[in-house]
Amino acid sequence: KLVELMEPLHPADIADLLEQINAFDRMRLIRLYDREFDGDILSELDESIREEVIGLLNPEVLAEAVRDLDSDDVVDLVEDLDEPQKEAILGALGDSDRAAVRQSLTYPEYSAGRLMQREVVMAPEHWNVGEAIDFLRNSEDLPEQFYHIVLVDPKLHPVGNVTLGKLMSSRREVLLKSIVEDTFHVIPVDQYEGDVAYAFNQYHLISAPVVDENDRLIGVITIDDAMAVLDDEHEEDILRLAGVGEESRLSDNTFETTKQRFPWLAVNLVTAVLASLVIAQFEEAIAQIVALAVLMPIVASMGGNAGTQALTVAVRALATKDLTGSNLWRVIRREVLVGLVNGLAFAVIMGLVGLIWFGSPALGGVIAAAMVVNLVVAGLAGIAIPVALEKLGVDPALASGAFVTTVTDVVGFFAFLGLAVVVLL
Amino acid sequence: KLVELMEPLHPADIADLLEQINAFDRMRLIRLYDREFDGDILSELDESIREEVIGLLNPEVLAEAVRDLDSDDVVDLVEDLDEPQKEAILGALGDSDRAAVRQSLTYPEYSAGRLMQREVVMAPEHWNVGEAIDFLRNSEDLPEQFYHIVLVDPKLHPVGNVTLGKLMSSRREVLLKSIVEDTFHVIPVDQYEGDVAYAFNQYHLISAPVVDENDRLIGVITIDDAMAVLDDEHEEDILRLAGVGEESRLSDNTFETTKQRFPWLAVNLVTAVLASLVIAQFEEAIAQIVALAVLMPIVASMGGNAGTQALTVAVRALATKDLTGSNLWRVIRREVLVGLVNGLAFAVIMGLVGLIWFGSPALGGVIAAAMVVNLVVAGLAGIAIPVALEKLGVDPALASGAFVTTVTDVVGFFAFLGLAVVVLL
Ligand SMILES: [Mg+2]
Ligand SMILES: [Mg+2]
Ligand SMILES: [Mg+2]
Ligand SMILES: [Mg+2]
Ligand SMILES: [Mg+2]
Ligand SMILES: [Mg+2]
Ligand SMILES: [Mg+2]
Ligand SMILES: [Mg+2]
Ligand SMILES: [Mg+2]
Ligand SMILES: [Mg+2]
Ligand SMILES: [Mg+2]
Ligand SMILES: [Mg+2]
Ligand SMILES: [Mg+2]
Repeated sequence: KLVELMEPLHPADIADLLEQINAFDRMRLIRLYDREFDGDILSELDESIREEVIGLLNPEVLAEAVRDLDSDDVVDLVEDLDEPQKEAILGALGDSDRAAVRQSLTYPEYSAGRLMQREVVMAPEHWNVGEAIDFLRNSEDLPEQFYHIVLVDPKLHPVGNVTLGKLMSSRREVLLKSIVEDTFHVIPVDQYEGDVAYAFNQYHLISAPVVDENDRLIGVITIDDAMAVLDDEHEEDILRLAGVGEESRLSDNTFETTKQRFPWLAVNLVTAVLASLVIAQFEEAIAQIVALAVLMPIVASMGGNAGTQALTVAVRALATKDLTGSNLWRVIRREVLVGLVNGLAFAVIMGLVGLIWFGSPALGGVIAAAMVVNLVVAGLAGIAIPVALEKLGVDPALASGAFVTTVTDVVGFFAFLGLAVVVLL
Repeated sequence: KLVELMEPLHPADIADLLEQINAFDRMRLIRLYDREFDGDILSELDESIREEVIGLLNPEVLAEAVRDLDSDDVVDLVEDLDEPQKEAILGALGDSDRAAVRQSLTYPEYSAGRLMQREVVMAPEHWNVGEAIDFLRNSEDLPEQFYHIVLVDPKLHPVGNVTLGKLMSSRREVLLKSIVEDTFHVIPVDQYEGDVAYAFNQYHLISAPVVDENDRLIGVITIDDAMAVLDDEHEEDILRLAGVGEESRLSDNTFETTKQRFPWLAVNLVTAVLASLVIAQFEEAIAQIVALAVLMPIVASMGGNAGTQALTVAVRALATKDLTGSNLWRVIRREVLVGLVNGLAFAVIMGLVGLIWFGSPALGGVIAAAMVVNLVVAGLAGIAIPVALEKLGVDPALASGAFVTTVTDVVGFFAFLGLAVVVLL
């Protein structure tokens, strides 16, 4: 009955459903399904749950499920499985499919080679529309989904894309070469998948040919898979910026989640202790003027926030390739100026708050000056640190936060307490 | 010469280039271009720079540039322009195109109606493959890009999609109805664009028909535009989480940027002052034991980070519709337990640090206890606040950060200083 209810659901929705229920319910549901299981559900499942579900399936049901998948989906499915499960799935495939999948698995993880499907529709560049149409109409096993015919030269180098729509609306004697698309983008098999997704988004590609090291056509990537990668890359950035392991899944249990969150909190503890060491240098001053202890977190907190603003803009701009050598200096100058202007604005506000609250113009002046210093430093660190990390080959989304807040904490406490010692004592 | 160099560039790359140079260079470059300007460059430009560039173009060049664009791109172009520029562009279009664009503009901003192109290829549901092929081959003006034929019933309700590939590989007498795609997803014209992008990503759609309030086919959305929306939605989330106005562009000047950043910093100032008011209640304790001032930022900072981890996971899960009623309690329980376990771990570490640094087991105990309390509260607030905001119709990406860090600051300072008063004085 439940299985009937789920019948009209899309495999992606069934996968989501399986992710949202607990492991026990999942087991019971899979048992119910144990005659026929759509392979696409496996493709759509989070990796953490995939192994579990594959383990629950009857080997014959699993074999049947996998046989219907495109080669790219099988690759995505098996690449994270342990050996016995991997072999079980590969064993279910026909010989040529298995060879194709094994070949794809030789390309590095997160490369175009893992993303492409081997099923390509190609035609010699000298063909005309009529020849291409006859070829298509006589082909036995065209891929499920294809949107272009890739033209190739005699050495199998791709030279252009003809859309099926254009093919259908052109006369039979027209040369394919003369109706290729304006935008033609060829992807090297070892390109990083994030760059593949960027190219699809930037150039509005629908499908793109993939070539090996000799520039020979070996597969094709379609936009739906590129869109999924774009989504993953965003998820990675947003989770890394927050110091959450990017492998984090909502279906993870408490133990896994604790393990993922711990390292970043440990890093933060070190930076917080560093900031405390700065404060400890000023124990005497604080003992004399307790108001310093009351106000000092404000300066640090404002700096941390301004720094986070700048670094997030920088990390995003690096990801979209919008921050380059040609505008770096302009952006740095802007961030510093923004820090200065906002610093001055909040200096006035906090100066007044300090004055009214504690009745001391000097204290107001100290917090105002410290605010300006810290917001300028925040702007500078917020842009310089991610750019430097990127240059060093470290993902700026991963490490910028810790560095920037360390800088703004240390500078914030030091500027405020240091000025206080000079001015107030 | 420069224009020659730029000749092979894709419009999207030319747009990026225009965004990265300063306004003066931009003006000089546009002047050089003043005979022929690809309309796609305008579509690709950031909105902030678009108006500027449109203003620089010779009206005839502009008219020519716009005439080649698809209706969806013209809509995207004119929707943010002021009236005179909008009318100039609409005036350049042919009558039927202008009517189509005006019609699209009547749909709400960020709706499917703004995203769709009016150019649709459709066929009656009773046709066979041969009729469809003949129809396509005799059509004069098929859209530039199309991937499906939408089958419609006599009332123009879309009933299925036939891919062109399937059409080409089927015999002429086969009914279109019998070769429709498994996955068929119809989009209401007033659907929010973020939900449209979600559907494309979730169901691997390549194009989807759009229907009006009477379920009649009025347009089609293609995946390249949905991918751009997905990218925008991510950008919005990441920038909102960091308290940066989502209209923020790298090409914005100092004044605009300062204005965008100020409000969030102002909110943060209020929350920081709130935290300071908590500290102020404990001035006497701090005056007696200055070590409290040294250690208190650590508890607050750890809570802030743990809260940010939890809230980012929650915001992301809400955006991907992975956090629902059926797993909310499980996730809340998990976050609280993770806070508890990590809290205990860091309690031990900080307890030892406090003990060694200040030689006081009691102080170590106080910071340890406060750490546990604050990390548990952080986990709870990190999930409960975004979920509550979503329920209230407020974007959780926008406001969660301020609430969560206020909670962790206030609780952190209060727990640590309060316990210190009880235990140490
Ligand atoms: Mg899913
Ligand atoms: Mg697929
Ligand atoms: Mg994978
Ligand atoms: Mg695929
Ligand atoms: Mg990645
Ligand atoms: Mg990345
Ligand atoms: Mg770009
Ligand atoms: Mg661009
Ligand atoms: Mg727009
Ligand atoms: Mg379009
Ligand atoms: Mg939006
Ligand atoms: Mg959103
Ligand atoms: Mg989902």
